[in-house]
Amino acid sequence: MKFSISKEAYLSALQQVQHVVSTRTTLPILSNVLIKAGKGELLFATTDLDVGISGTVKAEVEEGGATTLPARRLATIVRELPADEVDVSVDEKNVAHIRSGPSSFKLMGLAHDEFPPLPTFNDAREFKLEQRVLKECLRKTSYAISTDETRYVLNGILCSFRDNMLTMVATDGRRLAMVEQELEFPQSHEGDIIIPTKAVNEIQRLLGDEGEVTLKVASGQVGFDLGNYFLASKLIEGNYPNYRQVIPGESKERITLEREPLLRTLARVSLLLSDKSNSVKLHFSKDNLEVVANSPDVGEARESVAISYKGVDMTVAFNPEFLMAPLRNLLSDEVHLHLIDEISPGVIKSGSSFLYVLMPMRVNS
Amino acid sequence: MKFSISKEAYLSALQQVQHVVSTRTTLPILSNVLIKAGKGELLFATTDLDVGISGTVKAEVEEGGATTLPARRLATIVRELPADEVDVSVDEKNVAHIRSGPSSFKLMGLAHDEFPPLPTFNDAREFKLEQRVLKECLRKTSYAISTDETRYVLNGILCSFRDNMLTMVATDGRRLAMVEQELEFPQSHEGDIIIPTKAVNEIQRLLGDEGEVTLKVASGQVGFDLGNYFLASKLIEGNYPNYRQVIPGESKERITLEREPLLRTLARVSLLLSDKSNSVKLHFSKDNLEVVANSPDVGEARESVAISYKGVDMTVAFNPEFLMAPLRNLLSDEVHLHLIDEISPGVIKSGSSFLYVLMPMRVNS
Repeated sequence: MKFSISKEAYLSALQQVQHVVSTRTTLPILSNVLIKAGKGELLFATTDLDVGISGTVKAEVEEGGATTLPARRLATIVRELPADEVDVSVDEKNVAHIRSGPSSFKLMGLAHDEFPPLPTFNDAREFKLEQRVLKECLRKTSYAISTDETRYVLNGILCSFRDNMLTMVATDGRRLAMVEQELEFPQSHEGDIIIPTKAVNEIQRLLGDEGEVTLKVASGQVGFDLGNYFLASKLIEGNYPNYRQVIPGESKERITLEREPLLRTLARVSLLLSDKSNSVKLHFSKDNLEVVANSPDVGEARESVAISYKGVDMTVAFNPEFLMAPLRNLLSDEVHLHLIDEISPGVIKSGSSFLYVLMPMRVNS
Repeated sequence: MKFSISKEAYLSALQQVQHVVSTRTTLPILSNVLIKAGKGELLFATTDLDVGISGTVKAEVEEGGATTLPARRLATIVRELPADEVDVSVDEKNVAHIRSGPSSFKLMGLAHDEFPPLPTFNDAREFKLEQRVLKECLRKTSYAISTDETRYVLNGILCSFRDNMLTMVATDGRRLAMVEQELEFPQSHEGDIIIPTKAVNEIQRLLGDEGEVTLKVASGQVGFDLGNYFLASKLIEGNYPNYRQVIPGESKERITLEREPLLRTLARVSLLLSDKSNSVKLHFSKDNLEVVANSPDVGEARESVAISYKGVDMTVAFNPEFLMAPLRNLLSDEVHLHLIDEISPGVIKSGSSFLYVLMPMRVNS
């Protein structure tokens, strides 16, 4: 195998695929990136057996072939190469010779036939959407994924394809984020899948602001085809809880809030929290919201925000991190807070498609 | 106590003094910053009992007084304040009320009389030098300080004042960095002190490129007077080893090397090192230097550097980190490597004032 490639293209391809490579693995080949040299292009692939990424990049291939090389070390080397052009040749013992300017590296590889086969998606149900749209839906929900490994069905995002609508849901039991996106697909394609966290993180990194992505859903696995890159992931098996029953019914108060100023107020007031005291109180009174945090040992913070509010005086307490997370990930100027009373879940809405349910904390007044 | 101050000045003063505050301390007052409001200015001070920093900053003081407040939390709060102006009042229970724009914070403090007294330097020997000069001397030596706590006399920089010369030395037993700086002082001021690492780090942070600094050396302690800030530190007690005997005599080869290109070459070649193999070999032959690193499991890296060399072929191996450290911290375009043979210490020189001795590693050829 022998090829020449620009340093920049080589590095970019390696960086896109190297994130799934785990640093600690009992199977050495999983630390490696598969490199296949074909006609005028290279294929790169990495996998941790759950999530795999492959990509192609143009190169001057003098002699085809395949090998695997230590992914992270290779990326580090390529990043530091002194010249813009890189010449690579790999011998039959999978030793790569990498030359660039005055530098020459010899890197030990492993045979490509030990590399796990890339999954195929022959009978997959396909869904096409804009990369930008999928990226935004993931951004609005992914922070709410549960990290509690004992509740493994919650360690991912539910994607429910029903009635020409893609509904994405993430929850950790104390808050729930949901976004709905219109999407055309045949009725035969209806169904639910749960995409695990690692795949969610990786695909968010790969998605751009331009172009389309094709979701390919097959038995037990999902693929994301972005043209130059392809991400494949196992799905989480199991039944996602019925999230619809968590969403409160008719609300009593609907309060419009400026997203960014509110986020900054919450961040400031939260500075006075401590391990022992981790809730912020929102006091609503006529046209005023006062945000308060206090910790007996540390002190107290308060900040007033002018709002339009005509309802009864009400105090509701939330975990500030859970209240700030959707505000950080939304893009709209305003959000709407729907409240029933001091002990019912609050709901944050943005536009017609986003909804966030948050359990209140007990107010110790 | 009551004062108004600009957010920027308040934050800057807190940031300069807060570094010495330890995060884990059995004495709560040591987590706090002492704040004294006098005529038109505030004094800030922190200490960990070994190193202390005090500084003054202009403020509009309405009512004098003193208190102590949690240093890090206060700095975090001030950083996030929404308005440019901050009003602070502290009541007799040491509760601070901090107001800025719509925000109001209450922060619990501790009585100022519990704060350890700031050290005095009445009978100190004084040395004046430019801040820029001291900063550069510290930069050229401090990386070589030993971190081995069992050799506590090496956990700092030796400052030797003799014959109108300040000599600064740091070593960890495997390499030694030394810098000499002419300095006028009366003969009665001669003597050696060892400044501990933490004080070295803090004073490097405080030193600027302009203005003078006055070193004040008293029994068991040193002070650095920078005008607006004052750093005091205990000295390391004990006898510094005789570093002069470590410096090799007449060298056989004197090789001029370009500092930055050599640093980059070493950094690249070092990418092929592993835990098991941690030395780079320098092969000198006629007008050529080849830098080589290899690890049996990983591979090999080589890079050639054109140099002017007329001596015998020679291979000498060094720990790459120890070879790169002075190159990173010097500013000259060139350095001079003095070698005797493959097993004697190498010496790096820059200008007439800097010298670095480095033990070679065994070459396994």
